[in-house]
Amino acid sequence: MKATLVGMGSVGRALVTLLAQRQRSGGHRPGTPEIRAVVDSRGARLARAGQPLDLEALVAAKAQGVPVHRAEAAGGLGVEAGGPEWSQRLIAESGTELLIEAGPTDLKRPATAMGHLRAAMASGMHVVCVNKAPLATAMPALLELAAYNRVGLRFSGCVGAGTPVLAMGEQLARGDRVRGISAVVNGTTNYILTQMRDAGQSFGEALAGAQQLGYAEADPSGDVDGWDTAMKMVILAAAVMGVKTTVGRSQVEGISKVTREAMAEAAARGKTIKLVGRAGEDGVSVGPAEVDRHGPLDVAGSINAVVFRCDTLGEVTLSGRGAGGPETATAILRDAEDLAKAAGADRGGR
Amino acid sequence: MKATLVGMGSVGRALVTLLAQRQRSGGHRPGTPEIRAVVDSRGARLARAGQPLDLEALVAAKAQGVPVHRAEAAGGLGVEAGGPEWSQRLIAESGTELLIEAGPTDLKRPATAMGHLRAAMASGMHVVCVNKAPLATAMPALLELAAYNRVGLRFSGCVGAGTPVLAMGEQLARGDRVRGISAVVNGTTNYILTQMRDAGQSFGEALAGAQQLGYAEADPSGDVDGWDTAMKMVILAAAVMGVKTTVGRSQVEGISKVTREAMAEAAARGKTIKLVGRAGEDGVSVGPAEVDRHGPLDVAGSINAVVFRCDTLGEVTLSGRGAGGPETATAILRDAEDLAKAAGADRGGR
Repeated sequence: MKATLVGMGSVGRALVTLLAQRQRSGGHRPGTPEIRAVVDSRGARLARAGQPLDLEALVAAKAQGVPVHRAEAAGGLGVEAGGPEWSQRLIAESGTELLIEAGPTDLKRPATAMGHLRAAMASGMHVVCVNKAPLATAMPALLELAAYNRVGLRFSGCVGAGTPVLAMGEQLARGDRVRGISAVVNGTTNYILTQMRDAGQSFGEALAGAQQLGYAEADPSGDVDGWDTAMKMVILAAAVMGVKTTVGRSQVEGISKVTREAMAEAAARGKTIKLVGRAGEDGVSVGPAEVDRHGPLDVAGSINAVVFRCDTLGEVTLSGRGAGGPETATAILRDAEDLAKAAGADRGGR
Repeated sequence: MKATLVGMGSVGRALVTLLAQRQRSGGHRPGTPEIRAVVDSRGARLARAGQPLDLEALVAAKAQGVPVHRAEAAGGLGVEAGGPEWSQRLIAESGTELLIEAGPTDLKRPATAMGHLRAAMASGMHVVCVNKAPLATAMPALLELAAYNRVGLRFSGCVGAGTPVLAMGEQLARGDRVRGISAVVNGTTNYILTQMRDAGQSFGEALAGAQQLGYAEADPSGDVDGWDTAMKMVILAAAVMGVKTTVGRSQVEGISKVTREAMAEAAARGKTIKLVGRAGEDGVSVGPAEVDRHGPLDVAGSINAVVFRCDTLGEVTLSGRGAGGPETATAILRDAEDLAKAAGADRGGR
């Protein structure tokens, strides 16, 4: 399926690298997307008819800080960013069948990514989105838009990176009913809380350490205040339980008020404090909570854990790495394959 | 999809009960099988044209020890078992599109269930099988038979009961490559080993206790000697890694030689002994092994844990209940739904 890729951050680069490897090894799998256009914040590069982009050259250029529109070695045509909504127009006119949205997630400014999704779906393009912000702020509207335009909208990479959290939830929801989900899905807060527990640091000390190591961003509010967890829970609630809610309607509390003392008291009772996201039939909440030490939610570092509570099956727990460019790229490939398969089945009769 | 159900043990009865509930609530989901024939060891009951079987009456009769061919209150026609291969002929002539094989798993006598699968596929019927024995002894041949007859063969309920272990593995195998699987998938041995560790019992004492409580069968060899675990690993290896092997070609050791002393020594090193099944590209092995205390494979009682080792994603762990009639019945429903969907897509163009 011909695809437009938006975003050349760690996920976009990992995806392009993976596809370049497949291109080189000649092992074309059905459903593997063919990247015909790449968009970053400063411009775009478009393949010329009949000629593929040189994906390795593109990654090499980005690694040296060259924006895609200047990466001449990759072949194709460079287009500089310009004018309002330029990227939306470019997507709509790309002549590709699939948008892969892997641009920066910014909960305060979801409009750019939202514009990309709308432009693509209005043009009849399927969408694979690993950008949480538009989904978490407008999931109900986006699902309607996809249905109205009869296109597929997939977003597995938004939760658990490559660990198939959404696919697992969808499986469980079929033969059984999922009543609730509890999850630890943010690596930054998990690192900070672990440092507070094991090294006896205060929140401030642990946060500073995380920033020094690059585990927390300069503005850590998205992670520390619980918004990243909230976005993921909203997406999980919609996909697995059919609960249509948004981040704005969720109860969200971060970990900045967690003290060393609370941590020590919890430990004395065989518990530990984690930032836990919960999804139920009445919506989503996020906040620090005591969980059993060595229990399913007591995971280390960047490992995510998700517990599904089901009517018949009881508790089912999935855990695995929750972050990483290559990990998220594998989720994009699975989603793209699903969309290609579904599109193929639709066309089967013609 | 019209279906023939073989087996009215705990799984068969749970399935029929679940379907009766759906029938009564009128909430027909697309892809829900319609049971038109039921087979147990002593006979069969066949629905009459245009009339459904009364599934609740059937379960009520079985609960009182009445074989299905005598359960007149369920409606339809009773047929007593008779003659060699009677059940195979009955399946082939059932006029149904789906066989649900939920008969007793007997690794020493897989021929009966095998005959059912062969008869169904040769007649163009799809198959949902929760009977491990035929799959574990002849998986390569059965997969070929399904492909040759262009029918679907699904068996999710064979591993992890309702916990979607196979579906998870298949997901992982798509965007990534699964290199190995380690798993604790047998509740009986898990109970015995836990008693040995926590109550300081010998293997013999713990086994006797398990038998008294009904956790172990009078002939416990299938569980205790590792064969149940081996069957599940063979099925996992085939479905997730494309490794076609059989129980006969696997290295299998049980837990009868595990001593209290070994258990205590492991504990002193922060380890615990579990019966671990392993699948790799070179086949399957089963045996007692030390795993980390509180690690992913240190699960309690009847909880199963499966760790998939992937190239890109690293370790992904799934855990949940690994046994139970209702749990396994949800897996059957998911499989039947998948088959109905695939059959519908095939027919889309006609």
